[in-house]
Amino acid sequence: MSTHAFQAPKGTRDFYPSDLAVRRHIEHAWRSASIDCGFDEVEGPAFEHLELYTAKSGEGIVNELFSFRRAGGENDYALRPEFTPTLARMVAARAGALPVPVKWFAIPNMFRAERPQRGRLREFVQWNIDTLGVEGAATDIDVIACAILALERLGLTPLDVQVRLSHRVAIGRLLSALGVSEEKSADAMTLLDRRDKLKPDEFATRAQALGLSAEGVASFDLAARATQPLADEISALATKIGIPVEALAALDEVRAAATRAGILEWCTVDIGIVRGLAYYTGTVFEIHEISGAERAVAGGGRYDGLVELFGGPKMAACGFGMGDVVLANVLRDRKLLPDDGAALLPRPDAFVISAGSEAAEAELPRLMMALRRAGFHARSSSKVTRNVGKLLGDAGKARARFAVILGAELTEGQIALKNLDSGSHSGSQTLVALAELTEHLRVKA
Amino acid sequence: MSTHAFQAPKGTRDFYPSDLAVRRHIEHAWRSASIDCGFDEVEGPAFEHLELYTAKSGEGIVNELFSFRRAGGENDYALRPEFTPTLARMVAARAGALPVPVKWFAIPNMFRAERPQRGRLREFVQWNIDTLGVEGAATDIDVIACAILALERLGLTPLDVQVRLSHRVAIGRLLSALGVSEEKSADAMTLLDRRDKLKPDEFATRAQALGLSAEGVASFDLAARATQPLADEISALATKIGIPVEALAALDEVRAAATRAGILEWCTVDIGIVRGLAYYTGTVFEIHEISGAERAVAGGGRYDGLVELFGGPKMAACGFGMGDVVLANVLRDRKLLPDDGAALLPRPDAFVISAGSEAAEAELPRLMMALRRAGFHARSSSKVTRNVGKLLGDAGKARARFAVILGAELTEGQIALKNLDSGSHSGSQTLVALAELTEHLRVKA
Repeated sequence: MSTHAFQAPKGTRDFYPSDLAVRRHIEHAWRSASIDCGFDEVEGPAFEHLELYTAKSGEGIVNELFSFRRAGGENDYALRPEFTPTLARMVAARAGALPVPVKWFAIPNMFRAERPQRGRLREFVQWNIDTLGVEGAATDIDVIACAILALERLGLTPLDVQVRLSHRVAIGRLLSALGVSEEKSADAMTLLDRRDKLKPDEFATRAQALGLSAEGVASFDLAARATQPLADEISALATKIGIPVEALAALDEVRAAATRAGILEWCTVDIGIVRGLAYYTGTVFEIHEISGAERAVAGGGRYDGLVELFGGPKMAACGFGMGDVVLANVLRDRKLLPDDGAALLPRPDAFVISAGSEAAEAELPRLMMALRRAGFHARSSSKVTRNVGKLLGDAGKARARFAVILGAELTEGQIALKNLDSGSHSGSQTLVALAELTEHLRVKA
Repeated sequence: MSTHAFQAPKGTRDFYPSDLAVRRHIEHAWRSASIDCGFDEVEGPAFEHLELYTAKSGEGIVNELFSFRRAGGENDYALRPEFTPTLARMVAARAGALPVPVKWFAIPNMFRAERPQRGRLREFVQWNIDTLGVEGAATDIDVIACAILALERLGLTPLDVQVRLSHRVAIGRLLSALGVSEEKSADAMTLLDRRDKLKPDEFATRAQALGLSAEGVASFDLAARATQPLADEISALATKIGIPVEALAALDEVRAAATRAGILEWCTVDIGIVRGLAYYTGTVFEIHEISGAERAVAGGGRYDGLVELFGGPKMAACGFGMGDVVLANVLRDRKLLPDDGAALLPRPDAFVISAGSEAAEAELPRLMMALRRAGFHARSSSKVTRNVGKLLGDAGKARARFAVILGAELTEGQIALKNLDSGSHSGSQTLVALAELTEHLRVKA
């Protein structure tokens, strides 16, 4: 076996306990925010029929996918690069039977066969939030507010990240004013979104073909750079951005809803957020670290036609995806993650120490199982030493709340209980009846 | 797009909210038992270098794997069919730096390119528990006790499932007594384990080649069928099973450890549990539904040489895997899962109802976000109706603990709070100050 097989494949990660503790910390914020906002969790297969992705994104996506066939099988499969097609397929399959609105969240692992780089891996975890079956800015803001709730729980503020909002209709009107015909509007948005991946010449040629001159692109860029707080009046916004006030009308309702929900200070108007995928139809947004130094933390918007594309009815929809990789970079940069992820691991309730007598040695395994059956996180040492001082040190290193010492008093049915959170003074150690240990652990939790 | 792309690939599952609630219920029992027993969670990539699997199991495993290559890439990858190679690779990579014992758990999704059948899918979830770096029966039992703890939390008893225990040394001695030389012992165990997959002729021919005559196989079967409670004395066990008492000596320590941990009634001696994989070295076990009607719920054992095979040091190890599919079948059969998984979904703390006034409509989105920011699971209706009676019905259907009604009293800063758990009598509805709502929800939680 070559030695590379001993390593995780390029662009994937091994999560040792302290690494996984960080990921679980992030996932816990995602999950608790989702549940509190009334979303139900769903999950689908880690791979789908390849056609599920080519249908929406064209054959061009194949090179970005890990695709395969079962030996002797006939179907082409691909590891999921995103969750939306699975979600649309699942909603379409039961559209008539699902209670409306459908409010779903998912935290699946995803795969992209691209070159790994900062913020972009070949396997990652992505939080998905989607509301289907209801139109309107209040729903867009309900979805965005859920993202903000999770970010708040992770310690972020509007001074750290901002939701950059735009609207497909507003971008369309701006492009129209710059010479792009309505039927070429979606293509122009896709082109503008993919700009960083193209050579300047190629971009200019393609832009020209869509009716966008060099001056038109420059005007678009001026508008895109003129980001403004959503809190500003729409007429003032239009003036500052340099586009007709009517073009921003669609964002007026979004602003009103954001105001009612109390998340206005998290929101910036950024007409340059176009979101390349052709299926977006209304509000679009990305969440960015405020300096713009990192890739987008999240991206999403309204996609009212997608479920129909997967064989379902026409259905309003709005959602976003937030990956774990960029978010962890932002949190680390803001000192919102501990240097050692082990600090986020669950703390033991009890670290049980045998002082070495025959009775203690016999009692230890029974007590361990009894504590665990009572719902306590109980650990002990596998060391041969019965030096209580040393083992107390190990209990501290394990971050246990209590040390439980099986000493001489065991013959009278008593054990020593030491509260490791109250410092090292002797007063914190008390003798308690073995039969009452779980009560002591419970009360002091 | 052909219609099959609208369906989950064969052998994989779509988890709608009520389906995922069942899976999360099982995973919660796994995770909480793991943590209480002192295991730390780890995770690895969903795919590995193909060689990681062929190294341990030979080229024959390739047909059971989903394997692939990135377009333009050079490496062969495979979706993980089990977690042990990833675990062994991770331990080997940091063997010197990890605190001993290494006690790890994982709940990864796994993939097998086999024909789907009852209890066996192409994608499933498997709980893995492993302790590395310590020898001895007490560790074997510590691992097994963790499985039992999870099963207890799911409502199972020793009358529902049993841990069927054997020992590689005991099986070796039995095979030796039946004519199998020591160097052919491991092959004979693999053959016996794979018996169901072979035609009788083929099995007989292969058995003969390993020194196992038809009579030898019959004797082995007799011993394998003579399952006995581990609680029995070893000499009585040996007599009943029909093998020399020395052959069972290895199980004597296991029995003593099971007795000390208080899990003896969960354990059966079953010399027929051989576990096909060549890497097992000591205690081996499977957990089975007591009638034997289903596939194994879990399987594992001691595998002291495996980490070395992946480039690490020689390291004692014991672990098991438990899949979600067979376990869910057993739980369903025992009526330990609700008919509708939705009963396992998280309950809303508050269902907020606007009675329709302008003030109520303006307050609703503010209050929703305020409740969520305070950590409550809050829902409301997206219906146009402001019929409080109808909306209270929806609150009940949503299984909310409280209904919060924004009515006429809102002008005085008050809202009506209705405890939906205390029945429908009028006394359960009280007026409380809006500013004190979160306190009321907290106290009554």
